[in-house]
Amino acid sequence: MQGQSQQQAYDRGITIFSPDGRLYQVEYAREAVKRGTASVGVRAEDGVVLAADKRARSPLMEPESIEKLHKADDHVGVASAGHVADARQLIDFARRQAQVNRLRYGEAIGIETLTKNITDHIQQYTQVGGARPFGVALIVGGIENGEPRLFETDPSGTPYEWQALSIGSDRSDLRDYLEEEYEEGLSTDEAVGLALDTLAQSNDGELSPDGVGVATITVDDEEYEERPAEEIEAILEERDLLAVDEDDADAADESEDADAETDDEE
Amino acid sequence: MQGQSQQQAYDRGITIFSPDGRLYQVEYAREAVKRGTASVGVRAEDGVVLAADKRARSPLMEPESIEKLHKADDHVGVASAGHVADARQLIDFARRQAQVNRLRYGEAIGIETLTKNITDHIQQYTQVGGARPFGVALIVGGIENGEPRLFETDPSGTPYEWQALSIGSDRSDLRDYLEEEYEEGLSTDEAVGLALDTLAQSNDGELSPDGVGVATITVDDEEYEERPAEEIEAILEERDLLAVDEDDADAADESEDADAETDDEE
Amino acid sequence: MQGQSQQQAYDRGITIFSPDGRLYQVEYAREAVKRGTASVGVRAEDGVVLAADKRARSPLMEPESIEKLHKADDHVGVASAGHVADARQLIDFARRQAQVNRLRYGEAIGIETLTKNITDHIQQYTQVGGARPFGVALIVGGIENGEPRLFETDPSGTPYEWQALSIGSDRSDLRDYLEEEYEEGLSTDEAVGLALDTLAQSNDGELSPDGVGVATITVDDEEYEERPAEEIEAILEERDLLAVDEDDADAADESEDADAETDDEE
Amino acid sequence: MQGQSQQQAYDRGITIFSPDGRLYQVEYAREAVKRGTASVGVRAEDGVVLAADKRARSPLMEPESIEKLHKADDHVGVASAGHVADARQLIDFARRQAQVNRLRYGEAIGIETLTKNITDHIQQYTQVGGARPFGVALIVGGIENGEPRLFETDPSGTPYEWQALSIGSDRSDLRDYLEEEYEEGLSTDEAVGLALDTLAQSNDGELSPDGVGVATITVDDEEYEERPAEEIEAILEERDLLAVDEDDADAADESEDADAETDDEE
Amino acid sequence: MQGQSQQQAYDRGITIFSPDGRLYQVEYAREAVKRGTASVGVRAEDGVVLAADKRARSPLMEPESIEKLHKADDHVGVASAGHVADARQLIDFARRQAQVNRLRYGEAIGIETLTKNITDHIQQYTQVGGARPFGVALIVGGIENGEPRLFETDPSGTPYEWQALSIGSDRSDLRDYLEEEYEEGLSTDEAVGLALDTLAQSNDGELSPDGVGVATITVDDEEYEERPAEEIEAILEERDLLAVDEDDADAADESEDADAETDDEE
Amino acid sequence: MQGQSQQQAYDRGITIFSPDGRLYQVEYAREAVKRGTASVGVRAEDGVVLAADKRARSPLMEPESIEKLHKADDHVGVASAGHVADARQLIDFARRQAQVNRLRYGEAIGIETLTKNITDHIQQYTQVGGARPFGVALIVGGIENGEPRLFETDPSGTPYEWQALSIGSDRSDLRDYLEEEYEEGLSTDEAVGLALDTLAQSNDGELSPDGVGVATITVDDEEYEERPAEEIEAILEERDLLAVDEDDADAADESEDADAETDDEE
Amino acid sequence: MQGQSQQQAYDRGITIFSPDGRLYQVEYAREAVKRGTASVGVRAEDGVVLAADKRARSPLMEPESIEKLHKADDHVGVASAGHVADARQLIDFARRQAQVNRLRYGEAIGIETLTKNITDHIQQYTQVGGARPFGVALIVGGIENGEPRLFETDPSGTPYEWQALSIGSDRSDLRDYLEEEYEEGLSTDEAVGLALDTLAQSNDGELSPDGVGVATITVDDEEYEERPAEEIEAILEERDLLAVDEDDADAADESEDADAETDDEE
Repeated sequence: MQGQSQQQAYDRGITIFSPDGRLYQVEYAREAVKRGTASVGVRAEDGVVLAADKRARSPLMEPESIEKLHKADDHVGVASAGHVADARQLIDFARRQAQVNRLRYGEAIGIETLTKNITDHIQQYTQVGGARPFGVALIVGGIENGEPRLFETDPSGTPYEWQALSIGSDRSDLRDYLEEEYEEGLSTDEAVGLALDTLAQSNDGELSPDGVGVATITVDDEEYEERPAEEIEAILEERDLLAVDEDDADAADESEDADAETDDEE
Repeated sequence: MQGQSQQQAYDRGITIFSPDGRLYQVEYAREAVKRGTASVGVRAEDGVVLAADKRARSPLMEPESIEKLHKADDHVGVASAGHVADARQLIDFARRQAQVNRLRYGEAIGIETLTKNITDHIQQYTQVGGARPFGVALIVGGIENGEPRLFETDPSGTPYEWQALSIGSDRSDLRDYLEEEYEEGLSTDEAVGLALDTLAQSNDGELSPDGVGVATITVDDEEYEERPAEEIEAILEERDLLAVDEDDADAADESEDADAETDDEE
Repeated sequence: MQGQSQQQAYDRGITIFSPDGRLYQVEYAREAVKRGTASVGVRAEDGVVLAADKRARSPLMEPESIEKLHKADDHVGVASAGHVADARQLIDFARRQAQVNRLRYGEAIGIETLTKNITDHIQQYTQVGGARPFGVALIVGGIENGEPRLFETDPSGTPYEWQALSIGSDRSDLRDYLEEEYEEGLSTDEAVGLALDTLAQSNDGELSPDGVGVATITVDDEEYEERPAEEIEAILEERDLLAVDEDDADAADESEDADAETDDEE
Repeated sequence: MQGQSQQQAYDRGITIFSPDGRLYQVEYAREAVKRGTASVGVRAEDGVVLAADKRARSPLMEPESIEKLHKADDHVGVASAGHVADARQLIDFARRQAQVNRLRYGEAIGIETLTKNITDHIQQYTQVGGARPFGVALIVGGIENGEPRLFETDPSGTPYEWQALSIGSDRSDLRDYLEEEYEEGLSTDEAVGLALDTLAQSNDGELSPDGVGVATITVDDEEYEERPAEEIEAILEERDLLAVDEDDADAADESEDADAETDDEE
Repeated sequence: MQGQSQQQAYDRGITIFSPDGRLYQVEYAREAVKRGTASVGVRAEDGVVLAADKRARSPLMEPESIEKLHKADDHVGVASAGHVADARQLIDFARRQAQVNRLRYGEAIGIETLTKNITDHIQQYTQVGGARPFGVALIVGGIENGEPRLFETDPSGTPYEWQALSIGSDRSDLRDYLEEEYEEGLSTDEAVGLALDTLAQSNDGELSPDGVGVATITVDDEEYEERPAEEIEAILEERDLLAVDEDDADAADESEDADAETDDEE
Repeated sequence: MQGQSQQQAYDRGITIFSPDGRLYQVEYAREAVKRGTASVGVRAEDGVVLAADKRARSPLMEPESIEKLHKADDHVGVASAGHVADARQLIDFARRQAQVNRLRYGEAIGIETLTKNITDHIQQYTQVGGARPFGVALIVGGIENGEPRLFETDPSGTPYEWQALSIGSDRSDLRDYLEEEYEEGLSTDEAVGLALDTLAQSNDGELSPDGVGVATITVDDEEYEERPAEEIEAILEERDLLAVDEDDADAADESEDADAETDDEE
Repeated sequence: MQGQSQQQAYDRGITIFSPDGRLYQVEYAREAVKRGTASVGVRAEDGVVLAADKRARSPLMEPESIEKLHKADDHVGVASAGHVADARQLIDFARRQAQVNRLRYGEAIGIETLTKNITDHIQQYTQVGGARPFGVALIVGGIENGEPRLFETDPSGTPYEWQALSIGSDRSDLRDYLEEEYEEGLSTDEAVGLALDTLAQSNDGELSPDGVGVATITVDDEEYEERPAEEIEAILEERDLLAVDEDDADAADESEDADAETDDEE
């Protein structure tokens, strides 16, 4: 990594290459993703699980309004990390793509196709001038031809397929955890448990039912479903992850109040 | 926060990312919001309350012309903080959205839908070149399906839902106050009291009837209503918040005369 | 206020935010307004008074060609301060708005509506790139529903309503004077006197009939009327404001000849 | 006036405000006007006189090709100072405006209307990006409703009406001379004499018939008329202004050859 | 190669020439190519072989989702190195070109024609402003008139034809290896072996079947075919290239996690 | 003339004014003209003469391909100096203007009209952004209403009419020579002689027939005619201007090879 | 030539003039031409010869794919030096021009007309913003009206006609050689010999048949014809130019691998 003064030179206009072949604006957008709270995706034998850390930065904020989990179509869900307003733009884009597919071909869009539509859209914002890249990463999960699929989009516009992954803050710690704990052949319920275990890693091993969201799409009904708080609470209790004192988490957030545009602070 | 010389590098063109993933122009727009006088929103059991500090910077200025509270539609009100002229643009945008909804669907626009229309509009000004972000935050309150709803929009284009919140100067002090004093199940009248108590926190515990505005939308009539000065005066007196000497507040403002474009100085 | 070198950084492109949330180009435009000679507006019980310092910078210049007072419609007058050519653009805009209103709705445009049309137009020049803000402030006065109304527009695009105000050079001194001397319930003739008294504050207590303009719109006839020089001379004499030697004022201007684009020097 | 390094900051893009409210590009355009040779306008009782210093920078140059006096319409003449190619653009614009007026309304365009059409056109080049301001000032003279009228346009786009004025080099000396010598009620012939006397001030009291141009529009025939060289020679001789040796003037110009784009050097 | 400070000057806007006639943005894009993992192409007597290093940066990532080998048309394959999202844009472009050719001329597109369509498209991004060059190199291989053809495209938009080549990291080492080992008249199966031998050079002489991809197009069936993992495993074992411990490769990647936008890290 | 560092500030964007009212890009374009070899125009009693120094920078270059003399229409010729490729653009423009005039009005275009069409076109490139000025000056000569006319266009877009002039290198020396030697009433043949004498001034008093071009348009036939090399040789010999050794001139050029884009080096 | 820091100032935006009247971007494009390997053109009595140094930078690269000689139309060939991808754009342009001419006028395009179409196209890229100049020079040779013609285009857009010339690296040495050795009245075969002799000057007097290309267009058949490698080998042997060891040339190239976008390295 080079000195400060040199880096400045690459920030002033459109997204361009640095002498070592990097696209700084894209790398800085990745930093915006890291500022967001974590989201986790786990592919199970019979479904896909999306989970997100959605701690509110005040007890007066409605947890439901913290947008980390989104239904893109009946059979597709999206979890995001990073700049919230940018995520909304991409979710809207994804929804329109899914709708167009139904209208034009009379069938549900494929998860891989949808992901690549999104990443191609993201790539344009890294090559053509007059706009900045999207400061957000997405986990796109759903059922395609009866199979659960799980993809990632990043600010460069590259699509990846995963068995299990995390995006946002503490990414590498959570990935290490997933690499150790993930096993093939998990049931959707087991995958929910693993997703919550993973999220708890970046919260001192504790989660409050209001501060976390879980959505599943199973092979059986191919329907995006967000789990109710009570159900989450029961699972957390069962796995000994239930936060004793919710105020601690809030206090931690307080100091980061200036960064409110990334979901880190929500 | 980094040194001065580095920050300059990120101000010269369009809104771009800094090396740590921030959008400086958006953060600076937040500073514009903080320069504005405070507005407060409180959700009650049976309605929504919007209140705003609208001290005039001269006794010759008409208090009614200080635009902090706006009717967006019959059932929706908006309180603003920050750059007044920018607020007007967003209010106009909101009004057109509400009208279009009535024309197209024959019904009142939802509070959440309206808020997200606004934030998506705001987001565009943070990503596409050729314009600066909006230097204003809004509290959007109203009745949707018989339920009071209360939202915030910020300069990044992120929507949040709140039980009670404040925007503008002294934001974190007023939020602390609200977090301590807010209780679920308040009546609209109690919420008006809490909103005025909160505003008084940033005014040495005193408010003049002319220097404050209050609007309510109740579940019963779903009508935006600004409370007359006499009624406000009565409430202030009852709560022992009535300012003894109006000149003090003006004197305080005098020194900030150069910043007249933000509502801080009005 | 920060150091020189930092400020420069915010002047080079479009109008953008500084780290403390200011729009420098807008603040510099306010400086252009301060470079212009003063204009004063006073709302009376039965009319509105506009008065302007329009000293010529040479005895050979026709005083009538110094555009400080403008008829925008039968019932609306505008006084300006700042960059003369910019004022002309806004006056033209105001006239078209008033005409369109008559054509479309068959009635005279409201003073508040007209003012907000103008300020919304001004705001666009502060947010969208490719143009600079308007370097001019306006006083918009007229009769609406039988009531005298008096508004101000500033370079940020914020509208304010006033009982009495001044714009241009020596603004804060003249405002202090108005705050002390203004009383509600003035007749239009008394308001003319107050307006001239106020203007004389920035001219060593003296005015020449050619160097000042006065226009009134009364509730009775709702007609913009510029007062003839003889009438002004009579009033000045009566109030002991008549300049003994016109050359002094000219001499004062001579040294500011380089700034001729603001009306300060006219 | 501030230091060199600061000024540079305001020259790089579009025309923007400096911290003290000036538009530097407009002020620099005024400098271009000062680099041009002088033109003079005098309003007489029964006509308008335009005179211009049009010394050639070589005896081989055709004096007629030095464009300082222009017929804009039958009843309107224009004298220019500053950047010659810019003047041509504005004259063409003025001619089209005059023609359109005749076609649309069947009558000659008013002098004030024409001037303001031109200044509004000029103003656009000072506010909207992508072009520089016009580096030229104009004297617009003609007959309107039987009355002689005399206007000035400057690079900011401000219109002024004058009894007598000069533009271009030595402006303030020539204005002083005009202020002392001008009297109301001059005949057109007397005004021609005054105009030549004034021009001679910036030429060591001498003019050559080829190096000066004179045009008049009288109330009687409302026709723009350039005076033939012989007539000018006779007047110069009568007023003891006839240059003895034409070479001196040329020699003076020689050293300024690098600035040939302003009419100073023609 | 010149000093740091000078280079900066050429990065700020569009792609322009440096004083020594280089296009820095294009050279920096070449660096992006070098950051990508290697791809190899070998032309055999009876077919074309494309092979790519596609190590995943986590065991949880689906190796199939690492896009290094692409089918452009039935008879054409493309291997890429560098910025993945950019590669996708060019592959899409290539596919459309191939489709259009079939529709318009009723026949398969020539490999040389297709390559030159791509390079002409790439060149536009190096000459016209408002976008950056593509940060990717491609190997385009296929059958044309019964003959195997093998081309390279680079970020400057230059097409080259090769007997055997490598792109991406360790390019010059792998080229040296190919220059030594390549012989004319290889069979497609022998070419597959040479391609894997070459790739192994940049992996300590070892490859895992999941971490490498091989595609062939033979003269016989003119069909792009990706070889199954089992087949690759068998070949690797036969050539003594089979990696003993897959974790080593992953560990090596871990440290380069920040560069995830180039395929080096996948 | 100011210091280096300041000048730089005015070169970076569009053509803008410097603090002393100059347009630097236009002045730099004048320098490009001075880098070109000289052209001369002389107006005779009965025709117009254009002559140009067109030394080749290598004996292998075809002298005819050095474009300094151009036929714009039957009755109009143009000689150029400066950037050759820019000259071609203006000549093409002139030819189209002449053609359009014949088509629209059925008659030959006037020399003055044509010149002003060209200069107005040139002016646009000095005021509107997105392009640089033309780096070329032209001599436009021809017959209009039976009279020979001779004009100059410069990079600012100013038209001048001359009896005799030179453009390009050594301009002021050649002008001095012309001012001394030119007499009114020359025949076309005498004017050819004077033109060659003048050109020889910047070539040590010698010219080679191949290194010079001469064109005439006479009142009698109104036809642009380039004189054959033999005729020129005869005249040169007669006037004792014939170069003895052609190699010297070439050697002189050799060292200036880097500047080949201006015609200086041709 | 001035210091480094000043030059930088002229590289940042569009192609603009330096204070001494140069267009730096055009001069830097000339440097790109010099980085390319040499091409030579020789005009014979009965035809035109184009020859090019096309050494491959690896024995695995197909020599035919190194594009230095191009057929533009049946009767026109083009040799290039410099940026290969830019050359392709200009060749495509030339081909379209030739085709259009055949379609529109039913005849072959003239060599001079075609060259000037190309140079006018090149000039646009040096004057209008938003794109860089072409980094390539071309030799355009062919038969026009039974006569062999030979032209050059350079990055400024200037056309020249030559008897014999070289472009690309070692240009001035090769020109010196041509000036000494060229004689009028050569046969096409003799011209081929001279062209190869000249190219050998920049290769230690040796050429390999694969590393050189020769094309001829003769007056007899007016057909562009590339000479086969065997024929070239025979001529090289006959003239004692045949390289003994091909590896030396490759080794020399190796070190210049970073500059692959110019044809110097091919």
